[in-house]
Amino acid sequence: MSTSFFSTDQIPYKGPNNTDPLAFSHYNPSEVIMGKTMAEHLRFAVAYWHNFAWPGGDPFGGQTFDRPWFPDRISDPMQGAKLKADVAFDMFTTLGAPYFCFHDADVRPEGANFAENTRNLEEITDVFAGKMEQTGVKLLWGTANLFSHRRFMSGASTNPDPDVFAFSAATIKTCMDATHRLSGENYVLWGGREGYETLLNTDLKREMDQMGRMLNMVVEYKHKIGFKGMIMVEPKPQEPSKHQYDFDVATVYGFLQKYGLEGEVTMNLEQGHAILAGHSFEHEIALAQALGVFGSIDMNRNDYQSGWDTDQFPNNVPEVALAYYHILRGGGFTSGGTNFDAKLRRQSLDADDLLMAHIGGMDICARGFKAAAAMIEDATLENAVQQRYAGWNDTQARDMLAGKMDLTSIEQHVRSNDINPEPRSGRQEYLENLVNRFV
Amino acid sequence: MSTSFFSTDQIPYKGPNNTDPLAFSHYNPSEVIMGKTMAEHLRFAVAYWHNFAWPGGDPFGGQTFDRPWFPDRISDPMQGAKLKADVAFDMFTTLGAPYFCFHDADVRPEGANFAENTRNLEEITDVFAGKMEQTGVKLLWGTANLFSHRRFMSGASTNPDPDVFAFSAATIKTCMDATHRLSGENYVLWGGREGYETLLNTDLKREMDQMGRMLNMVVEYKHKIGFKGMIMVEPKPQEPSKHQYDFDVATVYGFLQKYGLEGEVTMNLEQGHAILAGHSFEHEIALAQALGVFGSIDMNRNDYQSGWDTDQFPNNVPEVALAYYHILRGGGFTSGGTNFDAKLRRQSLDADDLLMAHIGGMDICARGFKAAAAMIEDATLENAVQQRYAGWNDTQARDMLAGKMDLTSIEQHVRSNDINPEPRSGRQEYLENLVNRFV
Amino acid sequence: MSTSFFSTDQIPYKGPNNTDPLAFSHYNPSEVIMGKTMAEHLRFAVAYWHNFAWPGGDPFGGQTFDRPWFPDRISDPMQGAKLKADVAFDMFTTLGAPYFCFHDADVRPEGANFAENTRNLEEITDVFAGKMEQTGVKLLWGTANLFSHRRFMSGASTNPDPDVFAFSAATIKTCMDATHRLSGENYVLWGGREGYETLLNTDLKREMDQMGRMLNMVVEYKHKIGFKGMIMVEPKPQEPSKHQYDFDVATVYGFLQKYGLEGEVTMNLEQGHAILAGHSFEHEIALAQALGVFGSIDMNRNDYQSGWDTDQFPNNVPEVALAYYHILRGGGFTSGGTNFDAKLRRQSLDADDLLMAHIGGMDICARGFKAAAAMIEDATLENAVQQRYAGWNDTQARDMLAGKMDLTSIEQHVRSNDINPEPRSGRQEYLENLVNRFV
Amino acid sequence: MSTSFFSTDQIPYKGPNNTDPLAFSHYNPSEVIMGKTMAEHLRFAVAYWHNFAWPGGDPFGGQTFDRPWFPDRISDPMQGAKLKADVAFDMFTTLGAPYFCFHDADVRPEGANFAENTRNLEEITDVFAGKMEQTGVKLLWGTANLFSHRRFMSGASTNPDPDVFAFSAATIKTCMDATHRLSGENYVLWGGREGYETLLNTDLKREMDQMGRMLNMVVEYKHKIGFKGMIMVEPKPQEPSKHQYDFDVATVYGFLQKYGLEGEVTMNLEQGHAILAGHSFEHEIALAQALGVFGSIDMNRNDYQSGWDTDQFPNNVPEVALAYYHILRGGGFTSGGTNFDAKLRRQSLDADDLLMAHIGGMDICARGFKAAAAMIEDATLENAVQQRYAGWNDTQARDMLAGKMDLTSIEQHVRSNDINPEPRSGRQEYLENLVNRFV
Repeated sequence: MSTSFFSTDQIPYKGPNNTDPLAFSHYNPSEVIMGKTMAEHLRFAVAYWHNFAWPGGDPFGGQTFDRPWFPDRISDPMQGAKLKADVAFDMFTTLGAPYFCFHDADVRPEGANFAENTRNLEEITDVFAGKMEQTGVKLLWGTANLFSHRRFMSGASTNPDPDVFAFSAATIKTCMDATHRLSGENYVLWGGREGYETLLNTDLKREMDQMGRMLNMVVEYKHKIGFKGMIMVEPKPQEPSKHQYDFDVATVYGFLQKYGLEGEVTMNLEQGHAILAGHSFEHEIALAQALGVFGSIDMNRNDYQSGWDTDQFPNNVPEVALAYYHILRGGGFTSGGTNFDAKLRRQSLDADDLLMAHIGGMDICARGFKAAAAMIEDATLENAVQQRYAGWNDTQARDMLAGKMDLTSIEQHVRSNDINPEPRSGRQEYLENLVNRFV
Repeated sequence: MSTSFFSTDQIPYKGPNNTDPLAFSHYNPSEVIMGKTMAEHLRFAVAYWHNFAWPGGDPFGGQTFDRPWFPDRISDPMQGAKLKADVAFDMFTTLGAPYFCFHDADVRPEGANFAENTRNLEEITDVFAGKMEQTGVKLLWGTANLFSHRRFMSGASTNPDPDVFAFSAATIKTCMDATHRLSGENYVLWGGREGYETLLNTDLKREMDQMGRMLNMVVEYKHKIGFKGMIMVEPKPQEPSKHQYDFDVATVYGFLQKYGLEGEVTMNLEQGHAILAGHSFEHEIALAQALGVFGSIDMNRNDYQSGWDTDQFPNNVPEVALAYYHILRGGGFTSGGTNFDAKLRRQSLDADDLLMAHIGGMDICARGFKAAAAMIEDATLENAVQQRYAGWNDTQARDMLAGKMDLTSIEQHVRSNDINPEPRSGRQEYLENLVNRFV
Repeated sequence: MSTSFFSTDQIPYKGPNNTDPLAFSHYNPSEVIMGKTMAEHLRFAVAYWHNFAWPGGDPFGGQTFDRPWFPDRISDPMQGAKLKADVAFDMFTTLGAPYFCFHDADVRPEGANFAENTRNLEEITDVFAGKMEQTGVKLLWGTANLFSHRRFMSGASTNPDPDVFAFSAATIKTCMDATHRLSGENYVLWGGREGYETLLNTDLKREMDQMGRMLNMVVEYKHKIGFKGMIMVEPKPQEPSKHQYDFDVATVYGFLQKYGLEGEVTMNLEQGHAILAGHSFEHEIALAQALGVFGSIDMNRNDYQSGWDTDQFPNNVPEVALAYYHILRGGGFTSGGTNFDAKLRRQSLDADDLLMAHIGGMDICARGFKAAAAMIEDATLENAVQQRYAGWNDTQARDMLAGKMDLTSIEQHVRSNDINPEPRSGRQEYLENLVNRFV
Repeated sequence: MSTSFFSTDQIPYKGPNNTDPLAFSHYNPSEVIMGKTMAEHLRFAVAYWHNFAWPGGDPFGGQTFDRPWFPDRISDPMQGAKLKADVAFDMFTTLGAPYFCFHDADVRPEGANFAENTRNLEEITDVFAGKMEQTGVKLLWGTANLFSHRRFMSGASTNPDPDVFAFSAATIKTCMDATHRLSGENYVLWGGREGYETLLNTDLKREMDQMGRMLNMVVEYKHKIGFKGMIMVEPKPQEPSKHQYDFDVATVYGFLQKYGLEGEVTMNLEQGHAILAGHSFEHEIALAQALGVFGSIDMNRNDYQSGWDTDQFPNNVPEVALAYYHILRGGGFTSGGTNFDAKLRRQSLDADDLLMAHIGGMDICARGFKAAAAMIEDATLENAVQQRYAGWNDTQARDMLAGKMDLTSIEQHVRSNDINPEPRSGRQEYLENLVNRFV
């Protein structure tokens, strides 16, 4: 049943001393940590777009990959889409990845109009349904690509043309339908064109209102059809647009409040997007946890010396460990998971490069996750933080926070007691060393 | 009455062909534009800290400036503070700047404890009151320096030690009192230590709650004492902290909503802080206008090749014009104004360098403002934006936004009418050329 | 004879009060400044690639432009190439641009192999020769595209495969031949793939040696065929590669020395590339002048908030003025010129957007150039710099530099004379204000 | 003999399962790897300035550290300097660090003039000589601080005032003398003020010539006094200056060639400086090795989200491993070593924070070094690189590089053999996974 695209149809776990590039060294799906298997904790998903739809181009060069399902190799686009699906599910099962994620445009041929797009999507959805049943692979989330086609060049929900808003809304509906039909566990919105190239031709306020209305309709439709998963927004500060409205977690949180969507919408966080916004990945995760809007992650890595989205596979255990530490501190994933929104370098031409990239990513995540779990179980770090704020457990301190004192009474308190606080060490280097015990 | 610190006590307006470095070429305070004088529109303020308190140090070198009021020149700190005030008001009147701004720590000697700090501040407040009456110079805003003293090294309101929270609250009260006593037109909070160096020792959620409580107390106290000006938060993403909670306009807006402060608090926006957050200055202004939280500006310039806050005087008319364009589009300043949060380069040792820096800044602002006013009056740009969104005036389009349609009915609409939108040119280059007609 | 692609076939000069978007307001080609016409000073060139070959894609979206010569509109590629040439020369003459620049891949269809590429290029070269004769438009420089085709994905001269080195060398030869045949005034090399994605698979030393040999062969061939123009390298730090060997002016200068090419090779400098390397454009120009390697410029603008090459048309007069100031200080262009390596925003769909973008760019350059010329003629700035270093005219000072003193004798001099230098103001703000008199 | 400043006077090695924050877990000085002990390989040095001279200030706040040798605690500066030396050597021996490094200004009180500076330095040099003999601690390198005092605000060797050049030259001589007297193994020059704040007041060419002459005098003096160590320049792109001439390895290499210093001068590379220049640390090391100018390293870490020099202690094993991999590939250190140019966070107030910061840094380096050594011994990575370039071993390929072919003959070769190269996978993900086997 295999497509023979890859050189193997199973990636075994061989343990930490493994030297086989087509085996896992650290990701042992059935290993139990903190009461659950690694598979249950990490909830890995493979991204359809980078692996199967991207031809290997960059702004200065075209296609490098040679795939049997690409238009230059197969003339009937629906046949190409089906061959692509065969190879994709082949890869999911070969890797033992429990989930995948997709945009409509990744999986179905582009039609001449909305109706044809929808028919194509429905046909592929049926194909997927069969394969999912057959393989047990599940859908972590679905989403609509509202940024690649030229009709979206000036935005989808934020377009100056209401027809594009309408086209976008209708497309989202079909993608939510497909996701629901496939028992997808969540639905994601990434607004790469919801922003501007220049303020000179842009009405910020109007565009945000349009985006707010669209997101409200998505939430209304979710409830209407009984979709139980999370609706997640994925922040990114820029690229492709000069400025994107979903800049980062804090920005999206303000947006959700303004449009009455708190409690309805969470976020899908990506390492590379955090970096582009001037944050560490763990910052975005910790902030989303603090604000109650954490949903899922797109695990990848941005080159720290590049100013665009490099979408590389993660390869730095200490960084990945801090990400999972903050996920675990907040209780771990619920319906979210670890999607690899990462692509091969365009020079990595071989089929097995796809496997090795994911093996490396899954192993790194496994190592990072184990380190994070050990840090949680050890609790020294958490206790150090608690201890630092211990003074706030005093009655007077609680009263200040609880609104029982005001500036006048606090001033009186400072004067009466000649409060003259002496600083205490923040112990950053000690805590960094502590983390390094675990990674 | 002059201190003779500067080589002149009046900077005249000499018109666009001026070559005298100690005269204005563009800022003509009494010139009427759009119904008000330039002085009334621009509302220039001089910053006490950079001009009179900063010794010229940077992370790799110490004091370069040699000022008669510095501790190495005068042993009694209160006498130094008074001489500093003499020179400061000398400069305000020489420049014809209608406003100034200050932190407590800029103007009064540091005391041994809170009580002494307060006494010192009150003594200087009296000195200022006399000088303000004498000269007609006014206070645009006051603020508390809760970041320089080592007691604030781990935060002021967000400190893990509640005593620092209390000390900060009491200090803010005294600064609000001083501002009120001097008929200050606004009060500002900048939280340079309200953030973290490392997430490893930080409880994000707790710290934001502390900060929310503090800001609520400030608003409560404002109402209690009948202070009529705006309470403004000044966003900055980082520096001195690795991460600051008041990252940018969008972040602060989310914070205000979360802590019930919308409608009570606006923002003081700085060019250099916008740049550090990855935004253009006009973005931050336009966004604040769109969200109804625009207050005032700190006009300066950040070196685009430097990753820290360079606080240079503005010198690029096209950029300044876009800032004022968005200010004017929103109706211009109310109680806010144009504060120069800019400092001399540390190699600019001479007294007159202070004058020339401000003359250059005021002239650049005047040129930028005039260009912005001309763009507003011309209206071609505004009309082009309106025209771009004209399709949204149709009934069907309005219905989509007004909540009269949902995803299902919009999909039906797209299908029935075979909506297949064709993109239209965004005309960015045309609009950029249009702006260049005015600058 | 016009292709009717544009709405006009002539862009007139209408003076500074012009409001016609299809007329020049500042660029008056025949106006004489400092003894030469503006056309002779500025030597404008139009870039073939961005204007006629780029379909409007970005990393997140495909073609937006609809051009009659694109493959989706015309099936015979050579016929498309000729129609493209018709429109291109139409645009050159409409704008009154004296020059153009091209890569082989911009102008000829991609062939199945080297021989077919060459035949195609020769056929188009003949077409160009005819049009150049007819219109008087000249070739500022030619170049080879050794980065878009997948064969170059791992480098051209720096490829691990010697066959790619050979293919590249042969291609460069054909492009030098075409440039020579068309009386091109210079030849440029930009090495977008001469660098690495990861050090893990890269032998830095070997690759630099390969690149050094290639550049030597280019210089040898130039002399062999009697090509009189400059051979120019165009620095860029990264993008598309993670690291490019021709990082910036200083790096290329070190490379030229190492491979014995000083005096043979100069540089083509681009604003956007300077920004990506962490420099201002004027820095790169001033450094190239100081090192004797200045050649030509690619005038464009990089968005300061974007970390990739945005290649926008210049629109900031103060910045452009400083660039031309340093060009003029070094004597102005010889065989180099001002090439617009700038592209429309992908939302600027209309044919006339191409004209307006160039009109804006040429007007901005004209304003900047006039300001620069005025600064040169005024000489206040230059004199201030000279004055600052005046102490070095003393004999003792000259002796130190001339090698007549060593550390020992200088120490003796410091001791004997108790040298204890007092710093003097750098007067930066004064000088910035001075520049603003002219822009 | 201990000063009792720290809570311990010995940091033992306790192995990988250690949980004692005052013990090493990975740095076992006497462990033999690849034929030498870890102490011999790593050659750790402690930096005097950050640890003992820096008061904990940043641009927005003053002193946080409370040290008994600081001026606010001890009135006689020479007595302070001696107490500082006591604690410093206490720390060197407690950590078992074999080396230290210093600037003159770190160790001696600032005098009223050159003569007094020199006397103070000589007095402290005698103190150091005694302590070094007593403890066996050695000097990795000495250097002159030519950037902190206001006399250097506009440069040292590049100053517009020749008196500052002379003062700098004399000071360098005294620092070279002190380094030589203490048997220092190298001498370093870092030019934090050798650059500019604005091009408007700067003559680039003249300043580079001045710097070239100074460096030549340093080399001449080295030979005159028989100093055997390396003269090393330390590149940094900016900060404190807007632009520094020693931007990065490639820039300095060009400078050395221009001023005839190739073969005489090598470089001291710092992680944080590499990051600020837009490079990875391993890039700078690999490039210096490729160019034959590698000398020594300043091991630290820059926050990837901060645009200034954060000088944190290293804490990321995978990154450190790649640095040592490239050092080992080039043969390891000769007279250079691993200096921690890293400082405590200013909130880390406690004496033992100094120890823990270094323990963490030394452990991280030990882990990274061991991984690098294992990668070298394994050789899979090196072999993969060799294999990638194997085609260059063919005769024809060698001939192309050796200058036996030119563009004409290579074109002939491409035509005759219809050379049409097919790209091969760069295998980046495979190689990244391979590295992760070792870290």
